[in-house]
Amino acid sequence: MTKEQLIEQIKKKQSFLCVGLDVDLDKIPKHLLKLEDPIFEFNKQIIDATHHLTVAYKPNTAFYEAYGIKGWQSLQKTIVYLNKKYPDIFTIADAKRGDIGNTSTRYAKAFFEDLNFDSITVAPYMGSDSVEPFLAFKDKFTILLALTSNIGGLDFQTLKIDNEALYKKVLKKSLSWKNANNLMFVVGATRPTYFKEIRAIIPNHFLLVPGVGAQGGNLQDVCHFGLNKDIGLLINSTRGIIYASNGADFAEKAQEKALELQKEMQQILDREQLLS
Amino acid sequence: MTKEQLIEQIKKKQSFLCVGLDVDLDKIPKHLLKLEDPIFEFNKQIIDATHHLTVAYKPNTAFYEAYGIKGWQSLQKTIVYLNKKYPDIFTIADAKRGDIGNTSTRYAKAFFEDLNFDSITVAPYMGSDSVEPFLAFKDKFTILLALTSNIGGLDFQTLKIDNEALYKKVLKKSLSWKNANNLMFVVGATRPTYFKEIRAIIPNHFLLVPGVGAQGGNLQDVCHFGLNKDIGLLINSTRGIIYASNGADFAEKAQEKALELQKEMQQILDREQLLS
Repeated sequence: MTKEQLIEQIKKKQSFLCVGLDVDLDKIPKHLLKLEDPIFEFNKQIIDATHHLTVAYKPNTAFYEAYGIKGWQSLQKTIVYLNKKYPDIFTIADAKRGDIGNTSTRYAKAFFEDLNFDSITVAPYMGSDSVEPFLAFKDKFTILLALTSNIGGLDFQTLKIDNEALYKKVLKKSLSWKNANNLMFVVGATRPTYFKEIRAIIPNHFLLVPGVGAQGGNLQDVCHFGLNKDIGLLINSTRGIIYASNGADFAEKAQEKALELQKEMQQILDREQLLS
Repeated sequence: MTKEQLIEQIKKKQSFLCVGLDVDLDKIPKHLLKLEDPIFEFNKQIIDATHHLTVAYKPNTAFYEAYGIKGWQSLQKTIVYLNKKYPDIFTIADAKRGDIGNTSTRYAKAFFEDLNFDSITVAPYMGSDSVEPFLAFKDKFTILLALTSNIGGLDFQTLKIDNEALYKKVLKKSLSWKNANNLMFVVGATRPTYFKEIRAIIPNHFLLVPGVGAQGGNLQDVCHFGLNKDIGLLINSTRGIIYASNGADFAEKAQEKALELQKEMQQILDREQLLS
């Protein structure tokens, strides 16, 4: 998918919502557990109920790996379903991979070719040659961890180097890498005041923003500082949507919660005159 | 496995060699490709030929994920084979994972419980709560990336914070995390002079050292600065051993190369009087 196609989809749906598909068998409705593939069935119903309100889905690979080969089969079925039934949806493998060059190429092939995701999250610690193999894929996006929403995000990411936080060094350095236009960045919603400075460094790139809802981030604040001329934000919500109910009405309740966020996003886009 | 059991094995075999199992179907002998599971068959023969000369095996998950579900099956068969036939061997999932707390717990369960690896490599960028879920497992080791052997390792890891490189901040900070005694660290062999300063910070922890051989690191230099009273090093070699030949004699040639390294290690251990 191209950046233009993503923006077009956002404007059409008046939404920049991403739904996390982090499926925990202990949290999904009990009646699904009798089925052949409860994880895929859960995802399928969530997707069918919310696809018109969201522009992206983001399965976190940890939740699938935790169920071994069966989990990988569920992940594969989910991405095949998405690509076939909703080809306009932007798909994110939240995998936080990264390794030396020839090994990162393997990961890139696994997620971009074999599974055919539109994008993958990648950790920056190993630097240029760990990220560039992902960036080499045309019309695929590499979403680099910059400032994460968890407590430990402050352990290293905000340490000052020549009076500038490490995460800013990551942003600046990554712009010098080959095919840097294929970058997006993870910036946690729990630190909205940081968005202003981040936009000064990367005015044009898309930001994937976890942490709205369960982790305490505020959508209005994030948008105030984070929106750009292309909208430029993908706001992720996981637990608040997919676990809105653990009864038979889980998909319906997920739709309600997604609709609430979509409405709020629509108002913001209207107010900021970004829909033209 | 406990640290004491690992040390005992090292002294018994007079080796601190780790063999990387990064299987590329384009590089293994052609006659294996006709078999049902060429990757597992390759690993099995490499392991059977080298297990008495090595103390650890390290499959890199990227090479398995690249082959989708079949690849994961090969990885699973490899670890089951190792745990059953050679239970004294230390196993490393070179996965470089790391995510927010509840998600890292999923990865930890996947690799420590489901696959039953003794250890996993983890990236430090997301800080304490991304690593502590791994450290919570008793008799399992979390091998934190500190100073990696690739070129991009210099992009961020050696940046100075208050006159101290980031990788040293990572080492120091990680010692304050819960169950820090379950840590080991990745330190690339391509930077042997760094080992002295690293040992000043972490005198007692084991270091996993990639980059000897193909990437240009020197075993003597690494040992000179890196050995400690418990030996404290696991030296990884991958391509130099597993791809020593791509003919029918690949396992035999792998054994020869492993034996060369084991002999060199034995001499070093003798010289340093570390075998008592």
